[in-house]
Amino acid sequence: MAITLRLSDADFEQRFAAFLLTKREVSADVDAVVRAIIARVRAEGDAALIEYTQKFEKADLKDLGIAVSQDDIAKAYDAADPQTIEALKFARDRIRSHHERQRPKDDRYTDAIGVELGSRWTAIEAVGLYVPGGTASYPSSVLMSAVPAKVAGVERIVMAVPAPGGIINPLVLVAADLTGISEIYRVGGAQAIAALAYGTETIKPVAKIVGPGNAYVAAAKRQVFGTVGIDMIAGPSEVLVVADGSNDPDWIAADLLAQAEHDVSAQSILITDDPAFGAAVEQAVERQLKNLSRAETAAASWRDFGAVILVPRIEAALPLVDRIAAEHVELAIDEPESFLARMRNAGAVFLGRHTPEAIGDYVGGSNHVLPTARSARFSSGLSVLDFVKRTSILKLGPEQLRALAPAAIALAKAEGLDAHGRSVAIRLNM
Amino acid sequence: MAITLRLSDADFEQRFAAFLLTKREVSADVDAVVRAIIARVRAEGDAALIEYTQKFEKADLKDLGIAVSQDDIAKAYDAADPQTIEALKFARDRIRSHHERQRPKDDRYTDAIGVELGSRWTAIEAVGLYVPGGTASYPSSVLMSAVPAKVAGVERIVMAVPAPGGIINPLVLVAADLTGISEIYRVGGAQAIAALAYGTETIKPVAKIVGPGNAYVAAAKRQVFGTVGIDMIAGPSEVLVVADGSNDPDWIAADLLAQAEHDVSAQSILITDDPAFGAAVEQAVERQLKNLSRAETAAASWRDFGAVILVPRIEAALPLVDRIAAEHVELAIDEPESFLARMRNAGAVFLGRHTPEAIGDYVGGSNHVLPTARSARFSSGLSVLDFVKRTSILKLGPEQLRALAPAAIALAKAEGLDAHGRSVAIRLNM
Repeated sequence: MAITLRLSDADFEQRFAAFLLTKREVSADVDAVVRAIIARVRAEGDAALIEYTQKFEKADLKDLGIAVSQDDIAKAYDAADPQTIEALKFARDRIRSHHERQRPKDDRYTDAIGVELGSRWTAIEAVGLYVPGGTASYPSSVLMSAVPAKVAGVERIVMAVPAPGGIINPLVLVAADLTGISEIYRVGGAQAIAALAYGTETIKPVAKIVGPGNAYVAAAKRQVFGTVGIDMIAGPSEVLVVADGSNDPDWIAADLLAQAEHDVSAQSILITDDPAFGAAVEQAVERQLKNLSRAETAAASWRDFGAVILVPRIEAALPLVDRIAAEHVELAIDEPESFLARMRNAGAVFLGRHTPEAIGDYVGGSNHVLPTARSARFSSGLSVLDFVKRTSILKLGPEQLRALAPAAIALAKAEGLDAHGRSVAIRLNM
Repeated sequence: MAITLRLSDADFEQRFAAFLLTKREVSADVDAVVRAIIARVRAEGDAALIEYTQKFEKADLKDLGIAVSQDDIAKAYDAADPQTIEALKFARDRIRSHHERQRPKDDRYTDAIGVELGSRWTAIEAVGLYVPGGTASYPSSVLMSAVPAKVAGVERIVMAVPAPGGIINPLVLVAADLTGISEIYRVGGAQAIAALAYGTETIKPVAKIVGPGNAYVAAAKRQVFGTVGIDMIAGPSEVLVVADGSNDPDWIAADLLAQAEHDVSAQSILITDDPAFGAAVEQAVERQLKNLSRAETAAASWRDFGAVILVPRIEAALPLVDRIAAEHVELAIDEPESFLARMRNAGAVFLGRHTPEAIGDYVGGSNHVLPTARSARFSSGLSVLDFVKRTSILKLGPEQLRALAPAAIALAKAEGLDAHGRSVAIRLNM
């Protein structure tokens, strides 16, 4: 049973504040272990990758090869269900169409006194995509990180994916191939992050690493940050459903469970203005849990982190929605647009009664890599912008330099930076 | 004397690769100290701020107040030189005009099958600007972080600046006032970062913290990352000047010294195709060092980290420029535009012989907070984008859900996520 909070209760603020602070993950302190792994990969290169992979993944890279071959890709296609391959292509095309609209435009202009200014966007030269192994090895996530990189124009996209027992999910290889990734390595964990950041004999270094991973991968990403760029550190997934009493409780229960089945640390929250509806959803959750393959995971998530929040009117949910700042927000209400217009914080919003969040996970076209753990207050989902960078441009002639010089020299003087002032004055014989 | 590298030498690649890896900063291991400071500020709030400030800054906040008052601002205006105030206003207006062009546009559209998609940008609600104390307390840097935040529409902009011995640079307070910052606190170091991230009785928490600082500030920002957003961790400044023999050696020497005077860890690099010109610049540097207020700093920077790189033709500089990926690149050559078109990595580029980098530090209009230490390979300078975040939007009706359902259900099944598939199927009675 999830907890129930009532906005009308005297202790609501206190309980809601505590709820917001609930830690859903114990972050293991693996910094020292990870530091040692990175140092060894830097020093010993491929030999360290082979040894760590033997130890942690029980896979022999001397036999399998560090790099995945074209033959391995062909075998993956043979092993994959044709209908799933078609679904991946359909998803890829929709994701591509959406992300093509995200390409930032260069800007170049001349101001009133003739100074030329500009911003120019260029693709990052080489990017590493980390894909987890085992049960969390999702082909859809390969599409979600590879397609924006490709649309951005990244020339070299490298994928690292562990092969526990020598096995990689064939659909992960198919998804990589469908997005044009031709460089794939059978390495995982902190050793994969070290190889991508510093390079080995086989793996040339990249400039940025993106993708989720376990505690070792997350710690390694933090440690190599600066040497390379990294994306956000992803936490467990979450959904916040704002629903009035006009919904079918079974639909909303299915949405809450779709989040809960991801992980025992996932979180599903329902905010409603109809207590009877809230109770009906809770009953539907219990009912649906009975025939779900990942029932144990979903039940634990709902029990430990699920919540039903009762508000007197749907509008009263607004400040709570912004404070929760959820990764996914569903608005299953009559006027979702006007509610959205007054919201500030969410990774992605799903409007109306026929937009289950799962559509966004696969085929909506938008990205499913989104800010978790309240970080939608200050960050955004993965996009083309994560694979480009901006260079600013300035160009003056003698006349423009003369116009700007007095203020520049005054400020340089005020800051005690003589040589700054001189580099301006010397060009004007001042 | 800076080092000299010749592209034509047999050992160039080896020496250049070593040069790129040169560490210019020793990052002190202050993690444990910082962790303790953050924990105490979280537990004890204002009392901890008062005690740390007494200890580290020799300032009594019980007497001065944690918050800077309107009266303090008025006194700062009285203490400031009127010409400098005018220069700050001039700079502010130019920075504002440029950054107003960076506001990202919302996108909302309907695709061929009727699915509505969109990206909506909103300002971060509250942002903390950290400003260092002492000699690195630059009013120009206040403008560079406050103006983009204001243009982005951030409602609450909070400044934290230490007051060693009770004193804050009056120009820093004037710059804050000129950009509309009304909430300023006399706190610095890791304790300021902790207060901004977690709040105290006096300081309400913010959602993101930006601004440079010493090793304690940098470590604190890394530690609170996740609870709040942070900007990049800035390293020592650097300039790369690409210049042919048609330049006045004195102009280029002045530019190299303008960077070197910042810090003993700053770096100035000249690439030229004219060895005699390179030697003339080196002589001009030595000459100009003789009458420079910060000669000792500039001389140490040039001696320890300066470099002159000789190439047979200017075009041969291109791959080196991209590998150095400097914060600032000056192109003092005949055809800077065509060189720029073939470059990939730089924080900011200054075109032609009349665009000294110092103009960009103050009054060009572009931002002077730029990626250092080769991070221009994967990141960008500060902009309006750092103060907004994007929410993605998806909206389906029954017909659109029916069109997307088969692929979504196939992928959910392939990933073993039953409840995902069910949340789609249940709405279509499938």
